[in-house]
Amino acid sequence: MQNINYNKILERIHKEIKGDFGKGKLANYIPALAQIDPNQFAMHITTIEGNEFGIGNFTQAFSIQSISKAYTFTLALKQLDDEIWKRVGKEPSGNTFNSLVQLEYENGIPRNPFINAGAIVISDIIYEGLGKTKNKLLKFIKKLSENPTLIYDEEVAESEREYGDRNRAMANFIKSYENLSNEANDVLDIYFHQCSIAMSTQDLSRSFIYLANKGKSLKNKEILTARQAKRINAVMLTSGLYDAVGDFAYRVGLPAKSGVGGGIVAIIPNELVISVWSPELNSAGNSYIGTKALELFTTYASNSIF
Amino acid sequence: MQNINYNKILERIHKEIKGDFGKGKLANYIPALAQIDPNQFAMHITTIEGNEFGIGNFTQAFSIQSISKAYTFTLALKQLDDEIWKRVGKEPSGNTFNSLVQLEYENGIPRNPFINAGAIVISDIIYEGLGKTKNKLLKFIKKLSENPTLIYDEEVAESEREYGDRNRAMANFIKSYENLSNEANDVLDIYFHQCSIAMSTQDLSRSFIYLANKGKSLKNKEILTARQAKRINAVMLTSGLYDAVGDFAYRVGLPAKSGVGGGIVAIIPNELVISVWSPELNSAGNSYIGTKALELFTTYASNSIF
Amino acid sequence: MQNINYNKILERIHKEIKGDFGKGKLANYIPALAQIDPNQFAMHITTIEGNEFGIGNFTQAFSIQSISKAYTFTLALKQLDDEIWKRVGKEPSGNTFNSLVQLEYENGIPRNPFINAGAIVISDIIYEGLGKTKNKLLKFIKKLSENPTLIYDEEVAESEREYGDRNRAMANFIKSYENLSNEANDVLDIYFHQCSIAMSTQDLSRSFIYLANKGKSLKNKEILTARQAKRINAVMLTSGLYDAVGDFAYRVGLPAKSGVGGGIVAIIPNELVISVWSPELNSAGNSYIGTKALELFTTYASNSIF
Amino acid sequence: MQNINYNKILERIHKEIKGDFGKGKLANYIPALAQIDPNQFAMHITTIEGNEFGIGNFTQAFSIQSISKAYTFTLALKQLDDEIWKRVGKEPSGNTFNSLVQLEYENGIPRNPFINAGAIVISDIIYEGLGKTKNKLLKFIKKLSENPTLIYDEEVAESEREYGDRNRAMANFIKSYENLSNEANDVLDIYFHQCSIAMSTQDLSRSFIYLANKGKSLKNKEILTARQAKRINAVMLTSGLYDAVGDFAYRVGLPAKSGVGGGIVAIIPNELVISVWSPELNSAGNSYIGTKALELFTTYASNSIF
Repeated sequence: MQNINYNKILERIHKEIKGDFGKGKLANYIPALAQIDPNQFAMHITTIEGNEFGIGNFTQAFSIQSISKAYTFTLALKQLDDEIWKRVGKEPSGNTFNSLVQLEYENGIPRNPFINAGAIVISDIIYEGLGKTKNKLLKFIKKLSENPTLIYDEEVAESEREYGDRNRAMANFIKSYENLSNEANDVLDIYFHQCSIAMSTQDLSRSFIYLANKGKSLKNKEILTARQAKRINAVMLTSGLYDAVGDFAYRVGLPAKSGVGGGIVAIIPNELVISVWSPELNSAGNSYIGTKALELFTTYASNSIF
Repeated sequence: MQNINYNKILERIHKEIKGDFGKGKLANYIPALAQIDPNQFAMHITTIEGNEFGIGNFTQAFSIQSISKAYTFTLALKQLDDEIWKRVGKEPSGNTFNSLVQLEYENGIPRNPFINAGAIVISDIIYEGLGKTKNKLLKFIKKLSENPTLIYDEEVAESEREYGDRNRAMANFIKSYENLSNEANDVLDIYFHQCSIAMSTQDLSRSFIYLANKGKSLKNKEILTARQAKRINAVMLTSGLYDAVGDFAYRVGLPAKSGVGGGIVAIIPNELVISVWSPELNSAGNSYIGTKALELFTTYASNSIF
Repeated sequence: MQNINYNKILERIHKEIKGDFGKGKLANYIPALAQIDPNQFAMHITTIEGNEFGIGNFTQAFSIQSISKAYTFTLALKQLDDEIWKRVGKEPSGNTFNSLVQLEYENGIPRNPFINAGAIVISDIIYEGLGKTKNKLLKFIKKLSENPTLIYDEEVAESEREYGDRNRAMANFIKSYENLSNEANDVLDIYFHQCSIAMSTQDLSRSFIYLANKGKSLKNKEILTARQAKRINAVMLTSGLYDAVGDFAYRVGLPAKSGVGGGIVAIIPNELVISVWSPELNSAGNSYIGTKALELFTTYASNSIF
Repeated sequence: MQNINYNKILERIHKEIKGDFGKGKLANYIPALAQIDPNQFAMHITTIEGNEFGIGNFTQAFSIQSISKAYTFTLALKQLDDEIWKRVGKEPSGNTFNSLVQLEYENGIPRNPFINAGAIVISDIIYEGLGKTKNKLLKFIKKLSENPTLIYDEEVAESEREYGDRNRAMANFIKSYENLSNEANDVLDIYFHQCSIAMSTQDLSRSFIYLANKGKSLKNKEILTARQAKRINAVMLTSGLYDAVGDFAYRVGLPAKSGVGGGIVAIIPNELVISVWSPELNSAGNSYIGTKALELFTTYASNSIF
């Protein structure tokens, strides 16, 4: 829309965030994330016209972790449309992202598709829809990002499984409320793998363009209807940032999804997707520098949805 | 922006909502609200250029109730700017709007300015800032709406006081955490009165134009900075609709604030304010028909922030 | 029953607890308790035959605080018998003693008569029953203890009022559930005063003899039926020690009621009442040395109910 | 102690409870329990001198379910003595018996050995102590009851496993807090089997005599020290009856452990063990008629611990 020099803005941000390395903390719940070099940064923009702008290691792949929940939510919404809301809510959790408490008070219906419990239910849905195989999920993401080399990082997936007692508890708990159709272990297998996918900020920006572009992919293929895309953005804004959705909306003002690998993808509807990566996290589990970089971006580009 | 025939859209909505009378329920916690004629509807738009469009009883005043929290939040943000966040959070509550539980777990810091507990803290802040009188609050709203006849409805205020045991509990509870500077009863006096203000949808649309217009009022006076206005919108979107913020963002996709009197004010940033009123409420305490009318509006005007 | 030399046991205990001064902490929520000399200890036994044994400052009065809840519960049970359970529960709270959470989940019915919320409901009941005056409560306790000099310590009562925001919150909250018949302030006045009564361990042992003696006082007057006395003991055992009922039953094995003034009264049914006082508290809010002294007592006298 | 005609009392109780069939409900979470003939009743007393009194089908075996938690707790206390309290608490839960909430707030330390979570930790402890086999547990109970024909009911155990999603959730959740040493599935195998043991009221009274007899079995073998036995009684009284410990202490006044198969075992320290069975449950999950029968027993025998 506006005639903005994105390269200049990205360079300015790159300079300004340098003093912030060391202020956050690496995720430490699995070794694969705890051992990463923390001093990394990348930011990448893909516009709906297909223009791209990047800075830092924007082709460097990292563990997308919970960002994958936006892909699986997309597949489940495609599969069930509004029927999906019988199995999962769409309200912010107002609580830690892996809490079992709410699940208990709400009879096994997770609050939204972006908390772990909700993503497990979503995995159960797409496991059915994709013919009980995890390969088609990877294929879907490869196509969206136009990157045929994407893989499940089996070491990370194994690590997720090894340290996955709490997710295993969650899956069995949901099953006790009859909100899981498949075996807990089968559902968790796809869940642990989706978290392990390694992608770059460039891959991410490209792949999520359908959320900025009324449901259409870079190749103009309809991934979702315009209405569905808009709705995913709404759910991302109210539930995509763990316990910091209010703070993120306040500071950045864009629908977004983050992962504990340090990645964040944000959407400016009808304009662009902007992805950022820096591994150190703030206390809410979102990239410390990534959040700041996005805040600077909406300030310099004078561009938030509010 | 777009060349939209708002009158036509309002008429279409008016027709379509007629079958929905009787589907919601009047608020019943105070007699003044329980005795209202439920079959009422009004919708009113004020654009940032000052154009107006209305349908139904748009000059009919009703009890604005919690919509008043957007005014007091505005005054408190003006007064303290980001210092305000030491006294109240900005995250969605994920819980019933008058819950004491969260207050206990979070040591007397209410989750956001729009739950009752948060609004009581805000009342405490502005009570100081306005020189310990409730008159200046009314004066502020009169100016914003350019309606000098607005009044506190003393009967409603008295009713709020009479049935206000839970808010009294809340105020004393917050005070036990030393997050109230003034006497609980003084703070509650201003709180009960702000809820009692009677306004029309026209009054509301006019008065809140600063949230759509980068902080500037209809007379182009700076009420807030552009940045502050944007941030109020962000907090409204993530916390303005009680337990239904996710559902409202999903269906309507606009920052908004509702009240149990059946009013809702929604903001389309840089364009307009749209207010709606219909007294029957849905299970989340928001106007049943009002929510639907706004959903239809964003559909027909193809206009949400997502 | 057994021929036990209580004097010898009390002397032995007195010696053994001396090294424990300084291990607990004074209550600090009101100045009157925070300023007490912590190095004090008294223990006193009254048997159902009227024999008495004491050690330490057993005539020294101290603030009985929550021990008073056993007197008011007695009066309320006398007044309403099993009807009392419509207004308050009899299950352990499993939670901090002033929690509002449970009250919310259970619609204004406090879990038992010994948590603050429950005691406030009990105060509401006896305020009615005693003709809306707090004098008769004091008179009742004077008679039980055969000590006509007992007084409400007005300084303590005022302090309770001053720091009573949380209890005020509770009373208003209960009233919002319509489980309070009188004005919150009137009920709190009696509640704050009952906490302020100053008594010695001797006063306490004498006054509570009806709980050991099938409902009969020292002068053989029927205070409660045998059945009611037994039931108060049952409720004391499952709910009388704040969050430490399990630990106390495990270590001491007697029905008891404690107060943050450092006093504990324990009952050996059909034998005796034993009271202890030492101001320093353990983390659960019970007298550190008092708990230990009672544990030693049941060990040396080989006498618990289990 | 007293010269009581137990046969007469049992006969009187038997008559009085007859009108209460149909007032409770069979457990329905597993088919094996849901299909039982509800109109059954048995009551059996074993005194510490070895005298026995029974009425009804007192040799009829039924599923002991949670009563088994008293055996495993005994073995774990024998094994670890007070070290056991590092892994499990001893406070009443104040909540539903399979709640995950408390587990989350208390970092994987279950509130007591008698809620499911606590019993799972206990199973983990004895699984180690018994050499990683479930056979020794059965052997232990056979000896206690002097009934060599006792078996694990494999059909019930399989049913427990099939409907055990919530217990599986719990075990994995506890493991996520590192409070489970063995594989969740191994621990659950012993847990599901202990629930499935079939015993008669006679078996139960005989086997638990060590809790009434200072730790000694019918054959005068020391199962626990007197002190340990006393302490198990204390934990049973404050935590043995699910959410109804207060009500049970109030009405019956004895340490006891119940199971959803309709059995209850109660202890009169230094006198006797009394077991009762009737399959229909009250709302708290305890035998409806069983609770009433025990209440009548303590009334007629004038014998409670209070």
